[in-house]
Amino acid sequence: MITSPHNEKLKLIRKLGDRRHRDREGLFVAEGEDLIDAAAAAGLEPEFVIVAGKDVDPALLDAVSTLGSGTRAIGVYRRRWGEPVGPVCLYLHAVSDPGNVGAAIRSAHALVEGTVVLGPGCADPHSPKAVRATMGSIFGQPIARADVEATPRPRVALSAHGGRPLGTTGPPVTLCLGGEREGLPAEVLDRCDEEVTIPLRPDGAESLNVAAAAAIALHDINRQVRERTWRGSGYRRRANGEVHADA
Amino acid sequence: MITSPHNEKLKLIRKLGDRRHRDREGLFVAEGEDLIDAAAAAGLEPEFVIVAGKDVDPALLDAVSTLGSGTRAIGVYRRRWGEPVGPVCLYLHAVSDPGNVGAAIRSAHALVEGTVVLGPGCADPHSPKAVRATMGSIFGQPIARADVEATPRPRVALSAHGGRPLGTTGPPVTLCLGGEREGLPAEVLDRCDEEVTIPLRPDGAESLNVAAAAAIALHDINRQVRERTWRGSGYRRRANGEVHADA
Repeated sequence: MITSPHNEKLKLIRKLGDRRHRDREGLFVAEGEDLIDAAAAAGLEPEFVIVAGKDVDPALLDAVSTLGSGTRAIGVYRRRWGEPVGPVCLYLHAVSDPGNVGAAIRSAHALVEGTVVLGPGCADPHSPKAVRATMGSIFGQPIARADVEATPRPRVALSAHGGRPLGTTGPPVTLCLGGEREGLPAEVLDRCDEEVTIPLRPDGAESLNVAAAAAIALHDINRQVRERTWRGSGYRRRANGEVHADA
Repeated sequence: MITSPHNEKLKLIRKLGDRRHRDREGLFVAEGEDLIDAAAAAGLEPEFVIVAGKDVDPALLDAVSTLGSGTRAIGVYRRRWGEPVGPVCLYLHAVSDPGNVGAAIRSAHALVEGTVVLGPGCADPHSPKAVRATMGSIFGQPIARADVEATPRPRVALSAHGGRPLGTTGPPVTLCLGGEREGLPAEVLDRCDEEVTIPLRPDGAESLNVAAAAAIALHDINRQVRERTWRGSGYRRRANGEVHADA
């Protein structure tokens, strides 16, 4: 039972709150039983897990937790970076908010097969806030760090204005999104094959949150995948959304 | 120029960080020039606005800011509650995260005409974090507080599992979403006319973030609106997503 705040495991967890230490150690922290269960379900071995009341004094665990309410368990895991492979890549450029990066990783894991690729200026997906926003999807499909040139083509830029209406983009595709304020810079747009835009209603908000835009576009890609699958399956979708054997 | 932390305006701003004070005063705080500009664009008069260096010592303004980086201007506004009217209502039940409530308000404002209706257990949309997440949409369409019974029918429950695949829900509709963990309770489901589900890929994340799910469903409603409009307009959408005069 850990009873000293100077314990090496607690010191490591505190240090891993800082990006430089995560980069140096190649490790990150997952807080809470849900995330630890998600890692186990994905077959990932922790470096260690400490549980309040069993391995560590609960007050000491709460003291290193970044959750306002404290936590019952903390695990430390080795970071893994993947390659930018499809069929669907979600390329994020300068998305600096860790909550948005985490939410986009979760949506991609839920909706499409492939890789989330983090370009320059993105928040670290292994920060406590980003890991929490992934709700366990940080342990799902691999995440890559790469420039846009390294992603598979065709590349489709999701722009706030001026692109073709979203609705026909299917895999293979790399979907490219920029940060909340600046959108995609010219050097990324120049490397895209097409620009699409989520149609908004007139007189409403001028733009969507980047994680919301990613979710909408990934859902639309998923819809294309399902419709293609049905087309060759002998089944088809009726206007009411139900799937029936093709008559 | 305000040079004392005991100034009445600064004291009010500090107090409005607390929900009880917001409820008592009927006021809330918007931090940053973007939000203040959004209020002005919506024709809303502030109770007051104070600008760093002009009306207030910048260090004193930063001290009452909830933004980590400080702020250049803060405005105080009167809360307004609307009625739950359509054509599209987004009813949130026990969505307790202010970032999710704010993001849903922004997506609704961007995508559909109507009202966001906050049921029991929702985060206050006028908290600093929620207001920031709306990116100005808190000043857009009115927001209502009501039980599900007060929302217009038909009501469609967005469930994580077991509903009809999303894809044919158009206005008039009240779209009902529950909190991150519990989803919609039976007493809300019982008052819904239909259940729909966003299809997820196999073997991926088991669920979507509530704000991501709301964005996807609202986009799909917006898509129905645009397709209906086109159907009667003499224009139609080709398979490549472009709109052409009906031949």
